[in-house]
Amino acid sequence: MSDQQNFDEYYGYQYEELSLGQSAVYARTVTEADILAFAGVTGDFNPVHINQELAESTMFGGRIAHGMLSAGFISTVFGMKLPGPGCIYLSQTLKFKAPVKIGDTVTVRCTIKELTPEKRKAKFDTVCTVKGKVVLEGEAEIMVPKR
Amino acid sequence: MSDQQNFDEYYGYQYEELSLGQSAVYARTVTEADILAFAGVTGDFNPVHINQELAESTMFGGRIAHGMLSAGFISTVFGMKLPGPGCIYLSQTLKFKAPVKIGDTVTVRCTIKELTPEKRKAKFDTVCTVKGKVVLEGEAEIMVPKR
Amino acid sequence: MSDQQNFDEYYGYQYEELSLGQSAVYARTVTEADILAFAGVTGDFNPVHINQELAESTMFGGRIAHGMLSAGFISTVFGMKLPGPGCIYLSQTLKFKAPVKIGDTVTVRCTIKELTPEKRKAKFDTVCTVKGKVVLEGEAEIMVPKR
Amino acid sequence: MSDQQNFDEYYGYQYEELSLGQSAVYARTVTEADILAFAGVTGDFNPVHINQELAESTMFGGRIAHGMLSAGFISTVFGMKLPGPGCIYLSQTLKFKAPVKIGDTVTVRCTIKELTPEKRKAKFDTVCTVKGKVVLEGEAEIMVPKR
Repeated sequence: MSDQQNFDEYYGYQYEELSLGQSAVYARTVTEADILAFAGVTGDFNPVHINQELAESTMFGGRIAHGMLSAGFISTVFGMKLPGPGCIYLSQTLKFKAPVKIGDTVTVRCTIKELTPEKRKAKFDTVCTVKGKVVLEGEAEIMVPKR
Repeated sequence: MSDQQNFDEYYGYQYEELSLGQSAVYARTVTEADILAFAGVTGDFNPVHINQELAESTMFGGRIAHGMLSAGFISTVFGMKLPGPGCIYLSQTLKFKAPVKIGDTVTVRCTIKELTPEKRKAKFDTVCTVKGKVVLEGEAEIMVPKR
Repeated sequence: MSDQQNFDEYYGYQYEELSLGQSAVYARTVTEADILAFAGVTGDFNPVHINQELAESTMFGGRIAHGMLSAGFISTVFGMKLPGPGCIYLSQTLKFKAPVKIGDTVTVRCTIKELTPEKRKAKFDTVCTVKGKVVLEGEAEIMVPKR
Repeated sequence: MSDQQNFDEYYGYQYEELSLGQSAVYARTVTEADILAFAGVTGDFNPVHINQELAESTMFGGRIAHGMLSAGFISTVFGMKLPGPGCIYLSQTLKFKAPVKIGDTVTVRCTIKELTPEKRKAKFDTVCTVKGKVVLEGEAEIMVPKR
């Protein structure tokens, strides 16, 4: 015990601290650099993300972000804010509703819609918007184990 | 027309070329640098991804990749291989089954399980494995518009 | 007002919520990729950071991280945790006590040591350690303006 | 000795070559990509750095760079120019005087103000300016060991 480091203060909410309707938010302006970094780390070099000339010829009118980048922002809310470190990401559904363009600020809100205490699970609504318009929506299941 | 660039050869499969059971695969070894780049681009600095000492104290025994990084590899299959550029990502479900560790090679296979020609939609099984063990599974809906 | 977005929930502590002795912590394992990214963004390509062969010939025995990378982690505590978004970074002193090597987990703790309410200022002790050994220490002055 | 690589030509100034008033300069235009890379490597995702909409609502009027990014440029002067590779960074004080915005070119000048030969130490004034306006100032202590 003596030389065991205590990590308690790095962890997020305990399951008992969660309540229906509780929510957290994260927002990030999506830049060209983000899109390229995401392409580089995933390998998704679809020209609609990396080729401005081709992208201009599509219905999007220019390069757009990867849908999974916005999905990554949902993961940021769970891992950093609510429930925060220590939670286990069980599942996520994603409906891509509209493209995200360079310069758009994506706002993610995750809201608890269902609690199943005997399994220590919480179900969240997960919604990404740009200037109030939904670009991505779905729901997630998270478990918060006992520490 | 004369100075209009033709991008046809950048595009992937036409809807009529798709068939049930058709599949494509992508695999990538996940490195420490990938995890950090993904953290950097999303903002998900959950200590289980960036703090080796804390991560060693968890059931994972060390730093793990973001689940959404593997999800990003699914997007790579759709955007790069099948159906390839030009397709529209409509939805994705994700069940995170097991962690991905530094050095693991994640293999993604996407297989057409349903075709709805009147809507030009295809439904895919999407499975990520590490050494044959499923780490992430779900399904996706993709639309392939007429060009 | 109607179309004015409300950013209140993005902000951190109000000045009145701060108290002497309050502290926050952040820890990150420093990787080769971090050192290279830091070199790339600053331009500090001192060979002790990027040339393993030369670095092995020095008293450090291998590549070390930039001292200012650890200093950046101090900024992370202020910007993200305590006092969090909305605070103004006024000053920082830094004494570099020992090198940080690839694979070291740097733990930063910032502790309020002095409060000057009439100026809305807080003075912090800022200490970075690796396995309990101090690698960087100093103090910071932060202002938390009225919102 | 025969297979020992000689790294002499990688090193910077010897202590005996330093003189009062000697200075060196480094300048870099700060881009959006730099700010995001710095956020990614440190974990400082304070919204004033990554959320353009929120940043516009602050007194800064838009996203600003991390103060520690400019501090990193000071380290670049010491590690690359004066005294250059081989020197030991002992301490740095930093007073953040004004924000750095995307597109600003930060010029760092480091000037020797004091020499203590018996300890092989040099004290520097370190000043960062944008279009002649001081954004960061402080002083540093550097040691130049015998090689």
